[in-house]
Amino acid sequence: MKIKFCYISIGFSVAVVLSLFSCVGGVESTEQQFLSDEHPSLVLTSGGVAEIKSNLGRVPLFDQTLKAVIKEVDAEIANGIEVPIPKDLAGGYTHERHKSNFFIIQKAGVLFQITGDEKYAVYVRDMFLAYAKLWPTIGKHPAERSYARGRIFWQCLNDANWLVYASQGYDCIYDWLDESTREKLNKELFRPYAEYISIENPQFFNRIHNHSTWGNAAVGMIGLVMDDEELINWALNGLDIKVPGDIVKDNDGGDIQLEGQKEAGFLAQIDHSFSPDGYYTEGPYYQRYAMYPFLIFAQALANKKPEIGILDYREGLLIKAIYALINQTNAAGEFFPINDSQKGMSLASRELVHAVSMAYALGGKDAGLLSIVEHQGRVPLNNAGMAAAKGVADGKAQKFEYKSVELSDGANGDEGAIGIIRAQDVTLVMKYAKHGMGHGHFDRLGFLLYDQTGEVIQDYGAARWVNIEHKDGGGYLKENHSWAKETVAHNTLVVDKDSHFDGKVKPADKTSGTPYYFSGGDSVQIVSAKEMNAYDKVGMQRTMSVINIGELEKPLVIDLFSVQAPEGTRYDLPLYYLGEFMSSNQKFQMHNDLAPMGTNDGYQHLWAEGQTMLEEDIFSMTWFNSKRFYTVTSVVESGDEMILTRIGANDPNFNLRRDPGLIHRRKGGNTLFASLYEIHGNYDYASERPINSFTSIASLEVLHQSEAYAIVGFELKTGERYHFAFSLSDDDEGGRHAVETSNGQLEWNGIYDLKKY
Amino acid sequence: MKIKFCYISIGFSVAVVLSLFSCVGGVESTEQQFLSDEHPSLVLTSGGVAEIKSNLGRVPLFDQTLKAVIKEVDAEIANGIEVPIPKDLAGGYTHERHKSNFFIIQKAGVLFQITGDEKYAVYVRDMFLAYAKLWPTIGKHPAERSYARGRIFWQCLNDANWLVYASQGYDCIYDWLDESTREKLNKELFRPYAEYISIENPQFFNRIHNHSTWGNAAVGMIGLVMDDEELINWALNGLDIKVPGDIVKDNDGGDIQLEGQKEAGFLAQIDHSFSPDGYYTEGPYYQRYAMYPFLIFAQALANKKPEIGILDYREGLLIKAIYALINQTNAAGEFFPINDSQKGMSLASRELVHAVSMAYALGGKDAGLLSIVEHQGRVPLNNAGMAAAKGVADGKAQKFEYKSVELSDGANGDEGAIGIIRAQDVTLVMKYAKHGMGHGHFDRLGFLLYDQTGEVIQDYGAARWVNIEHKDGGGYLKENHSWAKETVAHNTLVVDKDSHFDGKVKPADKTSGTPYYFSGGDSVQIVSAKEMNAYDKVGMQRTMSVINIGELEKPLVIDLFSVQAPEGTRYDLPLYYLGEFMSSNQKFQMHNDLAPMGTNDGYQHLWAEGQTMLEEDIFSMTWFNSKRFYTVTSVVESGDEMILTRIGANDPNFNLRRDPGLIHRRKGGNTLFASLYEIHGNYDYASERPINSFTSIASLEVLHQSEAYAIVGFELKTGERYHFAFSLSDDDEGGRHAVETSNGQLEWNGIYDLKKY
Repeated sequence: MKIKFCYISIGFSVAVVLSLFSCVGGVESTEQQFLSDEHPSLVLTSGGVAEIKSNLGRVPLFDQTLKAVIKEVDAEIANGIEVPIPKDLAGGYTHERHKSNFFIIQKAGVLFQITGDEKYAVYVRDMFLAYAKLWPTIGKHPAERSYARGRIFWQCLNDANWLVYASQGYDCIYDWLDESTREKLNKELFRPYAEYISIENPQFFNRIHNHSTWGNAAVGMIGLVMDDEELINWALNGLDIKVPGDIVKDNDGGDIQLEGQKEAGFLAQIDHSFSPDGYYTEGPYYQRYAMYPFLIFAQALANKKPEIGILDYREGLLIKAIYALINQTNAAGEFFPINDSQKGMSLASRELVHAVSMAYALGGKDAGLLSIVEHQGRVPLNNAGMAAAKGVADGKAQKFEYKSVELSDGANGDEGAIGIIRAQDVTLVMKYAKHGMGHGHFDRLGFLLYDQTGEVIQDYGAARWVNIEHKDGGGYLKENHSWAKETVAHNTLVVDKDSHFDGKVKPADKTSGTPYYFSGGDSVQIVSAKEMNAYDKVGMQRTMSVINIGELEKPLVIDLFSVQAPEGTRYDLPLYYLGEFMSSNQKFQMHNDLAPMGTNDGYQHLWAEGQTMLEEDIFSMTWFNSKRFYTVTSVVESGDEMILTRIGANDPNFNLRRDPGLIHRRKGGNTLFASLYEIHGNYDYASERPINSFTSIASLEVLHQSEAYAIVGFELKTGERYHFAFSLSDDDEGGRHAVETSNGQLEWNGIYDLKKY
Repeated sequence: MKIKFCYISIGFSVAVVLSLFSCVGGVESTEQQFLSDEHPSLVLTSGGVAEIKSNLGRVPLFDQTLKAVIKEVDAEIANGIEVPIPKDLAGGYTHERHKSNFFIIQKAGVLFQITGDEKYAVYVRDMFLAYAKLWPTIGKHPAERSYARGRIFWQCLNDANWLVYASQGYDCIYDWLDESTREKLNKELFRPYAEYISIENPQFFNRIHNHSTWGNAAVGMIGLVMDDEELINWALNGLDIKVPGDIVKDNDGGDIQLEGQKEAGFLAQIDHSFSPDGYYTEGPYYQRYAMYPFLIFAQALANKKPEIGILDYREGLLIKAIYALINQTNAAGEFFPINDSQKGMSLASRELVHAVSMAYALGGKDAGLLSIVEHQGRVPLNNAGMAAAKGVADGKAQKFEYKSVELSDGANGDEGAIGIIRAQDVTLVMKYAKHGMGHGHFDRLGFLLYDQTGEVIQDYGAARWVNIEHKDGGGYLKENHSWAKETVAHNTLVVDKDSHFDGKVKPADKTSGTPYYFSGGDSVQIVSAKEMNAYDKVGMQRTMSVINIGELEKPLVIDLFSVQAPEGTRYDLPLYYLGEFMSSNQKFQMHNDLAPMGTNDGYQHLWAEGQTMLEEDIFSMTWFNSKRFYTVTSVVESGDEMILTRIGANDPNFNLRRDPGLIHRRKGGNTLFASLYEIHGNYDYASERPINSFTSIASLEVLHQSEAYAIVGFELKTGERYHFAFSLSDDDEGGRHAVETSNGQLEWNGIYDLKKY
């Protein structure tokens, strides 16, 4: 390994001939003198700094952030400069020290500009001189794990992180430096650094991948500081270099070269990484991480190369992407934990603090964003941050209106989607997007349900404790594969105890779910999608509706999961409710002796704590969580079973949470799983008075099921009766339907029909 | 049953001859005209009302509460008066309706006084007239379950609740009523009502028990309203009636007549229900419930019979009892869930809202109480509430200083105690009190540990969902006996898999733990107590110390559990940590197939998820909860085992939480269990940066153990070494000690010695 990597590296740095792609975006770089020679000009500008200074002491959120950053940087200055010889992996001393350094460099640079105190400039300069001294003395990082080894860190990705932040600090002291120091740093540190992560590692720089986004931004930003047009061009348009054939995969198994990939560089990243709605196929957890280089480089380009119109690029995609992120959060501002993601990552993160203020300042002064900024409690120390902080100080903040929205997936927006329905304090998310590559989960047609208190029906998220060394160094745990990605870990259908796509990423990546119908914003909101590829010979369509019914205190969720499959197919439909079991209309046989429910596909991690052959016409179960009651009501077919599950078997290192679940088990052919989810009542521990603790549903029945229609009827305990009919194959808004049901013929116009009797 | 109860009732109401105890408290009731004939004069007074009126609109907390109460009462008035014929048990319609009525009666009366709006007086009058019409038409409540059946409710206790509130409402409209209505109500409703719950049910009224406190207060308060000296005297001093011999137990198995009981009535309740420190043997959950009648009647007596000096009675015991309650709360204001208690009951409860304002207004204007009032967000609508709300509005509120305190148990303060140590945001509670009668748990020398985030080492609390019908009607669940009360459900020593006192209340009630040493407030705080009766031939002493060590970010807890017992004794020491297992220095054998750990004494509810024969000199385990890390470090003796447990076996109705635990298992004779508990570091999901996630303890060893001394030494990873020595049998503060240890001879003066090397 060592030898091979060395070879490639040397090969590139001496022998490669470069030719650049022609410019895209209408900018002809060679004909214009577009680079200002004044600094700072990247994120801060000299005019902007003047504006910030004139507002100091009058904008609380900005002042508070400034004070906190001064405290942090002053402590680091007091601590002295440490630039150790690279040695450790993430979590180790040298890694964490260099990581801390780049954050402080950026902050100290900003403080120099805002406060005018030279100690910050001195600190940044001395830090850079130390790095300039170190750089020629080190080769590749000694750890050999990465497909693209860095020099300061074990992988180029982290080296690029360093440069994205360091170039901002450099920009802030550039004009203050004497010319010889500037030249020394340009020649001995920054240009070689930029070359290392670009032309010397094209397998890192020239991909369509978040790694390359960091690389492009890093090289582009230092290029903007140094007025180095060559670097800027590499950054925007990629390298005309073919990656040697023997590096085809990264460390996560991702392809270095995508099928049919013709472009590279920053603009190509924008083209290919997002759907037209700003959705990122790996999901919001990774989008949050990837967004920072997109936005910070875009901000620098907007300042220094306004003629590119980067913020208008692809119809303002980057600002749209920020909105897409905001829309993928629950009431606490936490991202939906779809695909590999650690729960709890939220709008409070460093990246979103930067992004939301930027979206406010550069995206149209949306007052709804200010309530998020207010909640974040800090702003970036730049003009966007000042604008947002002033907006808050001026009392302009308005509640952000979370609206129902369907976010398409795929670069062209035609590869599935996620549907998000908001109704009062209820949020329903259904996923029928692309797989999400190496970080995807086998969860087609899975859903998550939230209310104001948090998770109601949960997605497990990733089996990982990010950066926590106790847990396998903070990386992905093996239970992430064996449990968290498997279909049975999600609220969607498992056929024959086998995960979607047989648990294989490659076929999963080739197709996506198929959006069928989405209608948000009314008193009847619906998301419906099909999945025809997850299993052979099995067609699945899930239709979920959130309806406002006058008799109920909260919106009611209707869940209709239609399946077309051969007779004898075995179905398991899990439901990961969160909270304490209160009661059920069924008598469960509880097990005192527990054994794993299977050996593979995630079943090996489940215990069946209780089970029952379902009786009566419906299954009903009420649970309690965070002072509220919840009830699921499902239609029972003859032979149905219900299993009360607990996660935790085959978990030698206690890596999994001991969360409960239900599995609705059925054997048959074409079928319909029909359920209602209610959020109801409350209970306060100080008054000990339960309000509305029982379900309001008296009955639920399937009135018709076929490949073309799903129709259910339900009755409230107060006597009102409703039916909900949905056309599964004709999505013509004006279509006319006449269907035989167990209650006689039903006729309606349009895709669905909700009626009260 | 029905016939017997009827017989007793009739017998009393016609045939019993009454003679009263002589007055206590220095008041001779027959010689003074001490009753004012002005109303209101119980909780509100006419002067007080004028003061409230003059402050309306200027005291936010009072105004807000008033507004909320007006909204509530107006809605009830709009709803109309409902006084149904009694039929249901708790939770049923007639019970809940009558319960709601008495709350509204009291509130409407207060609103009449404060707002002057006659609609409130009319509502209260008409409600009373409806009850006056109902009363003669009903006999005993049809439900026959209670040892003292009520008429409006299924038990006299609830009838007394009704009268305690109703008499306050009556007091408010008394002078407004015309004389004939007043006489009618006095004669046809209130006097018979008061007789029913006193002379007709002495087995309810004449006990030393919280039931009787309600009875005494009810009869006394209506007596004060009607100037009925006879009733007041019964209330204060009890009845000279012998309860018929065939009613000896209440429904919970409690004795009607305590051994040697000579007195009854309200003053005797104060004498016998509390320790001199204001501790109530059933614990804070029940104390909270019992306090309301104590305080509301006391407030009425203070207003109307100031000559009794009720608030000075027993050296101001009632106010002390409020402080005792406040001292038994965690950072969220929730009561320690010792004995039978539902977690979450807190200072926010109705009873404490009343009590804290009262303690402020009548107990010396302690500004620390105002921060609690502020947090409660509402005040009682009386002069105490106005005083507290004004204090808050005037900015007088100060942080309540929670201090380390030992609260003695027993009427004379010589029957055990609970020790509460506060150090920064750490709270340690150790219990060595009386058993707590029918609501007691077998938890001698058990402990609870909290920090700012909540529970660190938890007590399970009761197995009950109070008032939640799903769960066996909201009463105690059978798992309360089979699990929650058992010793293995607590953080204390189980010998031979058998609960303390063999799980029997009677012997447990006969003795208490023995306080040995308590020292709070310094950088070394210690609680130490002995328990010699829980097991035959086993002497136990637990010594816990909370120490501030410069090298650690949080106080460190030292736990030394000494046992003197015959060789071959089998010990299980459970530890109910709350959170996610991070890592251990031991390799556990995890079980995929689980079976209950036993058949009785609580073990039938535990699964062993993993276990190991301990190796190395110490056992160390780190867990994570609420963004913090925690580590337990324990000394290992040869042959020790550690078991990772999970609650949940033999739980047919899913009544138990699936919480984790550890059991340290040892076989031997005299021994010492020595452990350290650390609270350290943090982890934020938005920054994903773990701080100080590993233990700081490098080693821990027992340097000496004997009946006379426990000495441990420990070393930090940074190299500092400490020893902690404790004298287990000589508690002379000036005693001199010289002990051979494995590190040579150790000499010190006093009960303990903490030294750094």
